[in-house]
Amino acid sequence: MALPSQADDKVYHLKLAETWGANTPLLGDTTKRLAYLAKTLSNGRLHIRIDSSNKHKAPFGVFDMVRAGQYDIGHSASYYWKGKLPNSLYFTTMPFGMTAPEQYGWFYYGDGQSLMNEVYEPFGIYSFPGGNTGVQMGGWFQKEINSLADVQGLKIRIPGFAGEIWAKLGAKPVNIAPGDLYTSLERRTIDAVEWIGPSLDIQMGFHKIAPFYYTGWHEPASELQFLVNKKAFARLPADLQQILTTAMRVVAYDMYIHFQHESAVNWANMKREYPAIQVKSFPKDVINAMQAANSALLAAHAEKDPLAKRIQHSQASYMAKARAWTEIADQAYLNSMSE
Amino acid sequence: MALPSQADDKVYHLKLAETWGANTPLLGDTTKRLAYLAKTLSNGRLHIRIDSSNKHKAPFGVFDMVRAGQYDIGHSASYYWKGKLPNSLYFTTMPFGMTAPEQYGWFYYGDGQSLMNEVYEPFGIYSFPGGNTGVQMGGWFQKEINSLADVQGLKIRIPGFAGEIWAKLGAKPVNIAPGDLYTSLERRTIDAVEWIGPSLDIQMGFHKIAPFYYTGWHEPASELQFLVNKKAFARLPADLQQILTTAMRVVAYDMYIHFQHESAVNWANMKREYPAIQVKSFPKDVINAMQAANSALLAAHAEKDPLAKRIQHSQASYMAKARAWTEIADQAYLNSMSE
Repeated sequence: MALPSQADDKVYHLKLAETWGANTPLLGDTTKRLAYLAKTLSNGRLHIRIDSSNKHKAPFGVFDMVRAGQYDIGHSASYYWKGKLPNSLYFTTMPFGMTAPEQYGWFYYGDGQSLMNEVYEPFGIYSFPGGNTGVQMGGWFQKEINSLADVQGLKIRIPGFAGEIWAKLGAKPVNIAPGDLYTSLERRTIDAVEWIGPSLDIQMGFHKIAPFYYTGWHEPASELQFLVNKKAFARLPADLQQILTTAMRVVAYDMYIHFQHESAVNWANMKREYPAIQVKSFPKDVINAMQAANSALLAAHAEKDPLAKRIQHSQASYMAKARAWTEIADQAYLNSMSE
Repeated sequence: MALPSQADDKVYHLKLAETWGANTPLLGDTTKRLAYLAKTLSNGRLHIRIDSSNKHKAPFGVFDMVRAGQYDIGHSASYYWKGKLPNSLYFTTMPFGMTAPEQYGWFYYGDGQSLMNEVYEPFGIYSFPGGNTGVQMGGWFQKEINSLADVQGLKIRIPGFAGEIWAKLGAKPVNIAPGDLYTSLERRTIDAVEWIGPSLDIQMGFHKIAPFYYTGWHEPASELQFLVNKKAFARLPADLQQILTTAMRVVAYDMYIHFQHESAVNWANMKREYPAIQVKSFPKDVINAMQAANSALLAAHAEKDPLAKRIQHSQASYMAKARAWTEIADQAYLNSMSE
């Protein structure tokens, strides 16, 4: 059989800007894996140069740089753009939202990817899932939270939409540079810090100085994002387009599993070193108030924006089905083993 | 920059035998996706022909056919070979074992893949993860199981290792051809049927005739398998090797998400049509007895076979860490929303 016509033999060079600093564990591994796969799957015809924020100096400028064509690809998170693009909020994770497998189902077998396309298309950008962190923890607390009363005036470092929810409950979300967080928590200038989970919290050292580790509610499945400039994508021959999208898809899944692994290993290390860490879940009245605040914020957004309303509806109806299955599958299984 | 030397421009043809019948939903979609990706990633240089069991007539001969080189690739499940290769048992799923994300962590970031290599290498075969079904349900029951007493003499269709465990509890596992299962369950010739989960149970119709659907314990994360003949793999140029292994990896993850999606959709459909279906978990004394029987069977195997012992140890120690994380992450999150 004759060889089907090869598009061409040129080497294509793409530039990728990532929000993260050089060699950030897990997140930076994902872009390195992407570049490796692009090169090896294409026999050297697709080359991706990675610039970390140390180089491009604009961690939260990735969207604009990919839009402008300064970079062909970005690795970041959709909810960072909610200031300029409010509907980008829905494609990372939502408080009390889907778990990672549920959300991948929504992206790939429900309407998630096509709704994301609708949000990003006006900017000449494709957005694809870019790797999942799994459940993020609720944060490190100096005092136990026994009821909604304990939340009043609580100084907590937690950014974004989750911070707005804490504020609605009566807490005082504060902004503190990452480099000052440890000292602020140690000196009790602040009462609590939300970070990520054992995978990356361990290097921050919060477990050494705060006794309570609260379970997650606000980011059950944070999905990173690959941004691709549409014109740059269109310049690639069809096989390299397929190589790029397939490589992004597999490294995203891999990051989810890698986070799972590192979370398990680092949680075991934390507990070995500090066996007194107490894992707590927020009490029912706090969870109820968080859910009510979340619903109110979402309703306000849906009222102003018909596309937001459609996305919320799509997520809610997908999640209702997906969660009903998760409850009789994974949740029932896990509970039957731990009761 | 000059083009790195292309290995060659030949079109390579591989033959794949799958255990499944033609066009089996989900399972058959996975091999079709593999062939599609192999073709498009390689710009037509890698062609995979899929033979279903309708063609090759040997659903459980896939291992032997790949070993002999009659086929280059197989799509099947590792535990099917436990008769001739007892340690193949450990690479599909284990009763009370890891969930899918935990097990992928073991395969890719723990010792899972290298232990699987050790088991398959003597046969000139590579084995790779081939897609996960997620949690399989415990089965459809005509009567409620309230205690271990209700298990005595229970006639249940459940094959393999899980059937051995049921037998140890006092049940009577029976073998019945799939085509006769519906009638046997309807006429109460048998008391219960284990199949898969809503994704594929729906077409069997058991929900129309059995009121109790029990949650899973025996196959929390059944991972299918790609078998690859080593000599056939070695004949491929390096870029096509990378294309084949990457395509297998991504279609495996995709199958996990596809099962998640179809389970959710079909479970919603079942409940809409038959709202009286009652979901039950086995009572604590039954679960305890199942766990004890499982441990006894595993211990007997480990005693006879040092490699089995090493694999069991690797799984148990990986799972201890992974589950401690799952408990404070996914499980705590799901429970906080459903309490």
